[in-house]
Amino acid sequence: MSLELWAVIGAGLLAILYGAITVKSVLSLPTGNDRMREIAAAIQEGASAYLKKQYQTITIVGCVVFLVLLGAFKLDFIPAFGFAIGAVLSGAAGFIGMLVSVRANVRTTHAASESLGKGLSVAFRSGAITGLLVAGLALMGLAAYYGFLTGVLGHAPESRAVVNGLVSLSLGASLISVFARLGGGIFTKGADVGGDMVGKVEAGIPEDDPRNPATIADNVGDNVGDCAGMAADLFETYVVTVAATMVLGSILFTANAAQFMFYPLAIGAVCIITSIIGTYFVTLSKGSTNIMGALYKGLIVTGVLSLVAVGGVTFQMFGFSETVAETSRGLPFTGLSLFLCGVIGLVVTGLIVWITEYYTGTEYRPVKSVALASESGHGTNVIQGLAVSMEATALPAIVIVAAIITSFNLAGLFGIATAVTTMLALAGMIVALDAFGPVTDNAGGIAEMSGLEGSVRDTTDALDAVGNTTKAVTKGYAIGSAGLGALVLFAAYTKDIEHFVAHPTEYPFFADVNVNFSLSDPYVIAGLLIGGLLPYLFGGLAMQAVGRAASAIVEEVRRQFKEKPGIMQGTEKPDYARAVDMLTGAAIKEMVVPSMLPIFSPIVVYFVILAVADKSAALSAVGAMLIGVIVTGLFVAVSMTAGGGAWDNAKKYIEDGNHGGKGSEAHKAAVTGDTVGDPYKDTAGPAVNPMIKITNIVALLLLASLAG
Amino acid sequence: MSLELWAVIGAGLLAILYGAITVKSVLSLPTGNDRMREIAAAIQEGASAYLKKQYQTITIVGCVVFLVLLGAFKLDFIPAFGFAIGAVLSGAAGFIGMLVSVRANVRTTHAASESLGKGLSVAFRSGAITGLLVAGLALMGLAAYYGFLTGVLGHAPESRAVVNGLVSLSLGASLISVFARLGGGIFTKGADVGGDMVGKVEAGIPEDDPRNPATIADNVGDNVGDCAGMAADLFETYVVTVAATMVLGSILFTANAAQFMFYPLAIGAVCIITSIIGTYFVTLSKGSTNIMGALYKGLIVTGVLSLVAVGGVTFQMFGFSETVAETSRGLPFTGLSLFLCGVIGLVVTGLIVWITEYYTGTEYRPVKSVALASESGHGTNVIQGLAVSMEATALPAIVIVAAIITSFNLAGLFGIATAVTTMLALAGMIVALDAFGPVTDNAGGIAEMSGLEGSVRDTTDALDAVGNTTKAVTKGYAIGSAGLGALVLFAAYTKDIEHFVAHPTEYPFFADVNVNFSLSDPYVIAGLLIGGLLPYLFGGLAMQAVGRAASAIVEEVRRQFKEKPGIMQGTEKPDYARAVDMLTGAAIKEMVVPSMLPIFSPIVVYFVILAVADKSAALSAVGAMLIGVIVTGLFVAVSMTAGGGAWDNAKKYIEDGNHGGKGSEAHKAAVTGDTVGDPYKDTAGPAVNPMIKITNIVALLLLASLAG
Repeated sequence: MSLELWAVIGAGLLAILYGAITVKSVLSLPTGNDRMREIAAAIQEGASAYLKKQYQTITIVGCVVFLVLLGAFKLDFIPAFGFAIGAVLSGAAGFIGMLVSVRANVRTTHAASESLGKGLSVAFRSGAITGLLVAGLALMGLAAYYGFLTGVLGHAPESRAVVNGLVSLSLGASLISVFARLGGGIFTKGADVGGDMVGKVEAGIPEDDPRNPATIADNVGDNVGDCAGMAADLFETYVVTVAATMVLGSILFTANAAQFMFYPLAIGAVCIITSIIGTYFVTLSKGSTNIMGALYKGLIVTGVLSLVAVGGVTFQMFGFSETVAETSRGLPFTGLSLFLCGVIGLVVTGLIVWITEYYTGTEYRPVKSVALASESGHGTNVIQGLAVSMEATALPAIVIVAAIITSFNLAGLFGIATAVTTMLALAGMIVALDAFGPVTDNAGGIAEMSGLEGSVRDTTDALDAVGNTTKAVTKGYAIGSAGLGALVLFAAYTKDIEHFVAHPTEYPFFADVNVNFSLSDPYVIAGLLIGGLLPYLFGGLAMQAVGRAASAIVEEVRRQFKEKPGIMQGTEKPDYARAVDMLTGAAIKEMVVPSMLPIFSPIVVYFVILAVADKSAALSAVGAMLIGVIVTGLFVAVSMTAGGGAWDNAKKYIEDGNHGGKGSEAHKAAVTGDTVGDPYKDTAGPAVNPMIKITNIVALLLLASLAG
Repeated sequence: MSLELWAVIGAGLLAILYGAITVKSVLSLPTGNDRMREIAAAIQEGASAYLKKQYQTITIVGCVVFLVLLGAFKLDFIPAFGFAIGAVLSGAAGFIGMLVSVRANVRTTHAASESLGKGLSVAFRSGAITGLLVAGLALMGLAAYYGFLTGVLGHAPESRAVVNGLVSLSLGASLISVFARLGGGIFTKGADVGGDMVGKVEAGIPEDDPRNPATIADNVGDNVGDCAGMAADLFETYVVTVAATMVLGSILFTANAAQFMFYPLAIGAVCIITSIIGTYFVTLSKGSTNIMGALYKGLIVTGVLSLVAVGGVTFQMFGFSETVAETSRGLPFTGLSLFLCGVIGLVVTGLIVWITEYYTGTEYRPVKSVALASESGHGTNVIQGLAVSMEATALPAIVIVAAIITSFNLAGLFGIATAVTTMLALAGMIVALDAFGPVTDNAGGIAEMSGLEGSVRDTTDALDAVGNTTKAVTKGYAIGSAGLGALVLFAAYTKDIEHFVAHPTEYPFFADVNVNFSLSDPYVIAGLLIGGLLPYLFGGLAMQAVGRAASAIVEEVRRQFKEKPGIMQGTEKPDYARAVDMLTGAAIKEMVVPSMLPIFSPIVVYFVILAVADKSAALSAVGAMLIGVIVTGLFVAVSMTAGGGAWDNAKKYIEDGNHGGKGSEAHKAAVTGDTVGDPYKDTAGPAVNPMIKITNIVALLLLASLAG
């Protein structure tokens, strides 16, 4: 293994070291009074129990996939091991993040009782641990396995063994991610929706009231859904993007594959360092209450430093003015072109953050329009929210299109890949902003349940409101980058086929293949439509799963209220654990079927079209399906996450005293919108993200397996 | 003009004659008492006033488009006149249909007071008038203009003059259609949503209560939205499909273009006759109350007869066993293959009717699940409705994909075109089923407002419930056929470019063009994404327009209640006309901006990509955009119309006494879902349909204009 590769692994280790140190400093903080500790312990227990069961189920599915990969690749262990590495690291990132966040919550509550700045500091540092673990583990895993395959086993960087290993590693990450997003999403929103309906609406008790048997489940949900689920999602997006860029580099530039495969790793490595530096800039200046400003300060510092660092890496590796290589259309490009693609990635990140904030922030037209529509009733609130959710897709789509065109014109397909790699390189910082959310949400819950004075809750509420926005922003970022990342995967699919077809003696299966991705081919249209339906069907199934889980919780809480009448008087303790158990069972059961959709669809489409037509048509249809799933997936996911954010903040805007404030008819309507938005933004929408990529990765592995 | 063409025009005239005779027989029926006549007159007046204003606005836009077409085609009158013919006939179909339906409503009320069978007969015959006018005018317009261009002006059938004339005729129809769907949809749902919110919810008076100042507007809306709007929509789908099939025939088979261009007209002609026959089978057997059964009897008779008739026409024109021509891939096909494509069209119609009924009928799982979810509150009702709406896209997409593949394998692109032409040839009968809905809806309103005894309202309610299902079914049919029809337009776009590029001396603009529709081209991906965002943005704008119109109505009604306190006591008459006026203004204003989206998008995308790249890239991007708009448009439209239908019938299911019945908490939640579903299924969803096609047609005309 080269020294440079060791340096990349070192950067990954640095992130993990940062995590370890920060964990220690967070855990050393005081945990408040006994009541607070007791509640936090219940949340910890529930979250661990859930994740244990989730990982058990995933392990079974994972073992099956491991064996299938072994079989499909004729007992070659490289893909199967790659898969295992991706899965284990992704699981680890989520699990550790969750472990930290269920311990940081109570410490944040305590810190918030001292000052806003201290509360922010604890919550943000806990988020930063998850963020840097995600980026660090992802980068380390990729670099180490790549180094092992090329350095230890001696495979050429551009060999199929390396490509298959990297793609399988991505599959491992994606599989965990879709399970974590769906399972966690169903758990958290089942608890949230069910708990609110039976608690707030039926029993008339406030959110997080300790008398509500679903309240611990709700707080557990924040951790397993918003923290562990999101960490697995971003881990996946990171791994898939960097791996796809490496694969694309190896296919496009066989002559100097090693250099182009190292480039995305190098970008990832320097941006881990800039992310670590950025975290130190997230501080509240004395007397300021501008939490969002403090967070953005860190993000901007990271962004600007990354700009310099990516420029430096690019200059070091390629120089700026010499021709580096030619695009697939035969146009030469320079190191400067690659660097500019990186700049595009950073600009896209900034624009998507800005657009998402516009659509989900309380200061702007969209959220205000939803709040205003709440005055005329539940129906108009929902109508306006849906309208905003649909409108919110336009600008991100245009930004992505502009990024595709400009980066392609700068450096071809590899230019697009470089842009999205740079975008993802900031994941450490972005996840830090997001993982901050569930910690503050939990901190508020603990303050409420342990009966701390109102001012503490006010402080945690202020933090929580910002957490809502950062959560929406991260989702916008995750989906935007996922759309671009999936395009890189699709490019790898087409280039793979070209490669196989060009070498018919090595890959006899492809000897008579003539793939045509033209839109005038009916199999391409068929593939686009089938791909297009997947996010819709997947989203529909996920929403129904949340509905069922919420209904189960409603019944359980009603039963407890009936059997233990003392709960409402405060003389009897509700059975929190039972609600957690029930939801765990429901979420695990419900997550399996939708997750199978992206795994089996490419295989089914391939064999069905093969049966009615031929190999070429089948491969064209599968390729088109990948684009179909990206196109509708992007719109479905962006509309769901933006719409959900707008509903959530419209409710907050009303609770801040507008349109009649808390308890008014407008507020009731806004609560309905918020409920609708919950599974939209926290279950179905974000789960579409890994789902898009699984479809693409399974198609790539199908190709590789057909190639023998 | 050939004898055969005269025969087609004769079939169109026959449909119009059928309409005239049926109008006479319907108008000769008794109109009930004075109060009923008075209400009916108010509805007539409002509907006429609205349509007059709508057509005035459309005339202004139409004149601009007329002049632009004249300019774009260098003072060639053929496209501009074609446009005018399409626009005028489409407007006429909607206008006459509306004139009949606002007169049939009160006669249906009176007939319903005698028996269910009589009520059904009047309402259905009134719908059949609209249905056959739509099919008859569309077919006659196409055949006559085609005959005029080829027979009188002497242009060759495959000449550009004829192609441009037919495409422009489609544009005229599409433009009216998008305005009618949007304007009518905003009017009707603004009245419905606004009237319900302020009447049912705030004032606590029942639907259609004469004290509600919005009640006449609501009934006017049924006619201008569900009747005139839908008629314009289906007229458009019919014209566009048949014209696109003719154009495709002329491009694909230059050698015997006349024969292939006549074929779709012949299918249309025979199916008008089978539709007329079918209408006579819609009767309720003595003592039966199976209204849906009676309607389906007519549909099935029409379907079976059409099967025979299309077979006969095909055998007559091509024989069954001889090779007729070759597909663009060089595979020969026979007359039997073409006939089988026609059979596929009929099968698709049947399947889509069946799937839509499954997702929107009260007997099946989806609607029952929405009703059940209403028990736990507004939020869960909406969540489950959205989930159903998304799930409902899967089967129609699979049916469409299967139809594309099988008909393409039978007879290439022209096979797909034949399938969708046959599908559309049943439009006369399908529109009859749909236009029946608003008449019964109005009939119920008149019964309520004129204080007839409850049994009359029960009879009209039974008719109305069936009308809800047939409305949903027709929308599924319209969107499914629109998706397929748009694919034919896209095929015409690609074949047009091939034609221009192959003849560079005639079309010097295309001399250096090399268009690539491959999915691995970034401009194709960009086009797909931009196309994909159009239905989302359009849908978002349309939903917001309804929200604003509804809010305006709420304020107007509140104002009238305040200024005239006697209204609620029944001592003062509300100012119905003011509410109608207000909505008219709002709907006309709101319909313009979204309608411009599909008109300008292809032009803007072309020039933007031209500016950053070249002609070839720009033409590729525009082509891909057409597919993008079809792919997401299909899913958006199907999900909206199916979801809306499911919400509507979930409310009806609860009102039938399930889950607590009328007035229960579940019912309130179901009313919210129904309100959300209103703009979904009656404004945004159906308007996506013409919107998809305008984008395609404008692109075709852009090509033609660039070709000079």
